Amino acid sequence: MGQFLDGKNLADERAAILKTQVSKLKSQGIVPLFCVINIGDDPSSKLYIKTKKRRADEIGIVQKVYQLPKTQSQQSLLTLIDRLNQDKKVYGIMIQLPVPPQINLNEALEHIDPEKDVDCLTPSNVGRLWRGDHYVEPATAHGVLALLDHYQIKLHGKKVVIIGRSSIVGKPLAALMLERDATVSILHSKTKQLAEYTKNADILVSAVGHANLITPEMVKENAVVIDVGINRVNNQTVGDVNTVLIKPKVSFITPVPGGIGPLTVESLMEQVVKLTRRKNGR
Amino acid sequence: MGQFLDGKNLADERAAILKTQVSKLKSQGIVPLFCVINIGDDPSSKLYIKTKKRRADEIGIVQKVYQLPKTQSQQSLLTLIDRLNQDKKVYGIMIQLPVPPQINLNEALEHIDPEKDVDCLTPSNVGRLWRGDHYVEPATAHGVLALLDHYQIKLHGKKVVIIGRSSIVGKPLAALMLERDATVSILHSKTKQLAEYTKNADILVSAVGHANLITPEMVKENAVVIDVGINRVNNQTVGDVNTVLIKPKVSFITPVPGGIGPLTVESLMEQVVKLTRRKNGR
Repeated sequence: MGQFLDGKNLADERAAILKTQVSKLKSQGIVPLFCVINIGDDPSSKLYIKTKKRRADEIGIVQKVYQLPKTQSQQSLLTLIDRLNQDKKVYGIMIQLPVPPQINLNEALEHIDPEKDVDCLTPSNVGRLWRGDHYVEPATAHGVLALLDHYQIKLHGKKVVIIGRSSIVGKPLAALMLERDATVSILHSKTKQLAEYTKNADILVSAVGHANLITPEMVKENAVVIDVGINRVNNQTVGDVNTVLIKPKVSFITPVPGGIGPLTVESLMEQVVKLTRRKNGR
Repeated sequence: MGQFLDGKNLADERAAILKTQVSKLKSQGIVPLFCVINIGDDPSSKLYIKTKKRRADEIGIVQKVYQLPKTQSQQSLLTLIDRLNQDKKVYGIMIQLPVPPQINLNEALEHIDPEKDVDCLTPSNVGRLWRGDHYVEPATAHGVLALLDHYQIKLHGKKVVIIGRSSIVGKPLAALMLERDATVSILHSKTKQLAEYTKNADILVSAVGHANLITPEMVKENAVVIDVGINRVNNQTVGDVNTVLIKPKVSFITPVPGGIGPLTVESLMEQVVKLTRRKNGR
């Protein structure tokens, strides 16, 4: 019977450590503050922002939300980013995804000062990540590695399969796992036979957003399964993996909720603190 | 019986087109010029520089070599890069690899103006590549795609295996092939069973530098084999692939020499011209 990888508990543990670090910074007059730019009124975005706010409050980090209308122009978005780039009290800037179609996201991201790029989405920070020089780490990928490390699951020489090639999860996770000497396969919507890959994976990561995508016959006996998917089915939050059926077959599996989700939020806070410390030479 | 993918011929064809473009630029008073910084006296480096020089001359591009001593200090390297960054006549700057141990290569690369980064090794250009926004393309990866395109070998939905995770070949090639909707596996020295992956690959790329690494039983019937390796064995240049034994089994294979090598050099010249045109608004 597989064991759950308890992301919620690890996130709480790490948050407690972070809280102590933040107290110390505050006692020196340094307040970790980051800004979330939210454009439009996507209900999931609002929920994520609320979840982040709760964790930030707990740790002592200030999250400032810039709520912009759905009709927001590109130009005034860039002007806002410029202003936040200049603001010495701001240590992190992130754009909540998704953005409305009139927004050129790449241009907006490229506008963020890499020193305040808490999501690791500016070109130079992405490039640094790929060459093993981590200025910041994307929250989800950081969370996945923290969880594997906590349970002493090694990546060296392992066969890793990542489903999903997004800039926020699949690609950066591939970079970090490759750096840890895993052999990495990146699958996506155009991959014809997912199972051909997944059934050989020592570590399987699904980051698609498709409930029940991963069924038991797709998973190797004693594999480690990391479920990054978040889907709403019958008013319940579920991942990409059919956990009930797969848990008996594997060695470790993340629950949804309570797996990677809380670690992503907590990891984001770690990046805010990292950027704050660096900016203040701490 | 497999067909050779004739990189030499394609490189010559593309060079002829490039030559016309360069003539036109020159008639407008614009001279494509790039600088190669070579530190120490690695014989292979000197050979590569000579090969590049020959192609540059043919096309009408100026290659300027800065030959620095093996004992070159980091500081004076950075000063040289600064000077070339400032020089309006210089459109491309590259550091010939390898560099001696006292040189901090990452720092030096980060020093190059991304607008002159002809090798696509500065962090921001690497990051742009990974998000599908190609400011420049690394020469070898560009050459591989040009060759596949020329022979109308599609990447969409294909199973690609890349052996080698270097910053100059394996990683950028993975980015470009993923963008073309291939499913990409990245293998390396810590991969335990190369054959487990290679024998299922529709397209197999070896970029290791190890003669006879790829034997017939590792390759799928009718696969496409791209050999990026360059090895000297008994005074002959050979790739990573045992071509004689493998050619009968596959549909296409690159020869070594005459495959990816000439395309890499020609692709570099394309990048020089691309940067020159962009800088001049052409």
